[in-house]
Amino acid sequence: MRRIVVQKFGGTSVADTGKIKNVAKTVIHEKNNGNDVVVVVSAMGHTTDYLVKMAKDLSATPSEREMDMLLSTGEGVSIALLAMAIQAQGYDAVSFNAMQVGIFTENVHSKARILKIETEKLRKNLNEGKIVIVAGFQGVTADGEITTLGRGGSDTSAVAIAAALNAERCDIYTDVEGVYTTDPRVVPTASKLKSISYEEMLELAHAGANVLHPRSVETAKLNNVPLRVRSSFKIDDMGTLILGVDKMEIDRPVTGVAADLSQTRIVVLDVPDTPGQAAKIFSTLAKENISVDMIIQSYAKKETNTNDIAFTIDTSDKGKTLTTLDKLKSEIGCRDILANSEIAKVSIIGAGMIDRPGIASGMFETLSNLGINIKMISTSEIKISCLVDKADANKAVKALHEEFDLGSDVVADVKGDLPNV
Amino acid sequence: MRRIVVQKFGGTSVADTGKIKNVAKTVIHEKNNGNDVVVVVSAMGHTTDYLVKMAKDLSATPSEREMDMLLSTGEGVSIALLAMAIQAQGYDAVSFNAMQVGIFTENVHSKARILKIETEKLRKNLNEGKIVIVAGFQGVTADGEITTLGRGGSDTSAVAIAAALNAERCDIYTDVEGVYTTDPRVVPTASKLKSISYEEMLELAHAGANVLHPRSVETAKLNNVPLRVRSSFKIDDMGTLILGVDKMEIDRPVTGVAADLSQTRIVVLDVPDTPGQAAKIFSTLAKENISVDMIIQSYAKKETNTNDIAFTIDTSDKGKTLTTLDKLKSEIGCRDILANSEIAKVSIIGAGMIDRPGIASGMFETLSNLGINIKMISTSEIKISCLVDKADANKAVKALHEEFDLGSDVVADVKGDLPNV
Repeated sequence: MRRIVVQKFGGTSVADTGKIKNVAKTVIHEKNNGNDVVVVVSAMGHTTDYLVKMAKDLSATPSEREMDMLLSTGEGVSIALLAMAIQAQGYDAVSFNAMQVGIFTENVHSKARILKIETEKLRKNLNEGKIVIVAGFQGVTADGEITTLGRGGSDTSAVAIAAALNAERCDIYTDVEGVYTTDPRVVPTASKLKSISYEEMLELAHAGANVLHPRSVETAKLNNVPLRVRSSFKIDDMGTLILGVDKMEIDRPVTGVAADLSQTRIVVLDVPDTPGQAAKIFSTLAKENISVDMIIQSYAKKETNTNDIAFTIDTSDKGKTLTTLDKLKSEIGCRDILANSEIAKVSIIGAGMIDRPGIASGMFETLSNLGINIKMISTSEIKISCLVDKADANKAVKALHEEFDLGSDVVADVKGDLPNV
Repeated sequence: MRRIVVQKFGGTSVADTGKIKNVAKTVIHEKNNGNDVVVVVSAMGHTTDYLVKMAKDLSATPSEREMDMLLSTGEGVSIALLAMAIQAQGYDAVSFNAMQVGIFTENVHSKARILKIETEKLRKNLNEGKIVIVAGFQGVTADGEITTLGRGGSDTSAVAIAAALNAERCDIYTDVEGVYTTDPRVVPTASKLKSISYEEMLELAHAGANVLHPRSVETAKLNNVPLRVRSSFKIDDMGTLILGVDKMEIDRPVTGVAADLSQTRIVVLDVPDTPGQAAKIFSTLAKENISVDMIIQSYAKKETNTNDIAFTIDTSDKGKTLTTLDKLKSEIGCRDILANSEIAKVSIIGAGMIDRPGIASGMFETLSNLGINIKMISTSEIKISCLVDKADANKAVKALHEEFDLGSDVVADVKGDLPNV
């Protein structure tokens, strides 16, 4: 049986007909490698902005159902144009929207989750030697309603299709060359990772690296689909492979460093130390759809019999969070609520840190040596995050990148050969 | 049971968000009349041109299948935007593309014919009190392939939906106020018809009046759907009603005058008078997809035992026709082939002329009195056409319009009341 490779190209890669021709070349290159190719594309460049602007002209609060109808047309344009560009090069290609393929989602508009992907039409056309082009970002419900997948949607479409077809791998083409040990704009010695595990990639994504949406990585992890992040402009650069940690040789404890500058710390001061107070706060925030990241509750203060509860949120949720907590203030009986957006979350990530003692202390010492005050700490099995002043973030990232020796060329290698390279 | 009215708005009516708001008002006005409303819309203004241009950038001969995929996105945009505009006015609306409704066509791209329209989803949503908006111009095959209907497609979608739903009538909104006795730019006294029969409208359409594509009129006639041509800009103007001749009071023999300036006369000189010669010529042209309009074969000339065969074609087919006939020349054994594009076909149309003698002679005399030479004549039950020099066309139309008294206000009235007015 021939191997299937799924390729995904985002909106900037198909922004105009010239770029679509380039994408056609990349697709044909993969086809000529002897693989069956399924291509997932997003809407062209600024199409979505243009459509959203027209919708806003007509209604301050356009219905989510009609927004999905509207936005899904964007991929309809790009899939057909890419098929034509490929055909013009003498290759057989066919485009399908989500309804035609049968990319079934739950019945939720603007952020639906994929439930099931029919593979019959995809396999039939691949078996006929065709390059198959599928609209990303969109789905359809069992009732024939058109849905969209929300942020990271096209990446998720591509990974889910790769999983359904049991594809060799899923290549996500972007305007960066792969996943780096840290942001190269902050640390010039940042090196490109040859490979990284799903778990590390998830932590890097959550920690502020914007290469892939966590949702697509989670989908890949769940289905064990090898993901490759690679450049739209360097056809021979293999980018970074993301795969299961079990397939990797862990040769160093820390894989990457990331800083997230978009968080705000909230402190609820002197919450009476009675059961259920934290539950009340966080369930109320959850109802308002506010995601909470780091949470710390202090030991109860003996004098006042109260706790301080601190947590971080995305700064875009700051206003909503303060309004929500203000309503709750008298019910909780706390003294005050403080918010600070001049903070940054600096994280080191590495699947190898589990077995190696001294990584956390190494991080704390590095920050301490720079005179950087740590405001909060949270840890997971493969990540340590410290909240610091925003002004100290870049300094911290540079020092940690050096401390954990991330400037060399290959940071984590793969057991045996990389699949299908 | 509530009455259903189908409304159709073309590309110029939905060219921008301001115009879409106007369409929303017209739709709501009809809904407030107490009718269930289905709205069929075309793609916004220049969308189709823009999409075609991108396709041509990518391929000199883009595949028809992918062109259908591409072009069908245009209506996807306009239906969603119109739904939002209606919702913004506080009315419930929902949009569907052809695949969602189930507008099934034959498996032909770029000019498919509608085979069947499912009504379940339409009726369900109408019964829920919603204004239902449907994408015109597009269809879907039983295999889930997206098709488009070709020229006059959106009008045809609207009429076919009206037929499937057994609608009260189908209103085609355009930038003219209705159907006129002749082109008002040529004859300032041209009057708007209150009503006209399908048959007359078909002859007027074929004769060069560009209000409605003949295909939509034929579909209306076949299904006996009352059609109304009315202005997008004058909400209270009832335009022209097109319906079965059996429902009309015929009070004058001639309903309209039309001139078609886009024809070319071809004369095949001295074709040997043996059986099968005409069949050979016209079947060869048919194979090349060349439509032939008027055909005249002279009596055989005794001296040479030959005929002259003359016919008219659309001038856009002139080159192809001459090339085709040139190949056939030696086989037929004719003397020469002549082409003349400086001609015009002037027609008078009227369902009432059947029972009235002297209409044809009245036409010939009128032209004769003006010194206009008639080059060819063809007649049907409700139409008489004369081929004249192009330079004489306007003069002929004006004189015929006056001869048959078409400058008054109401030209043909309807038996009893107009339906649902």
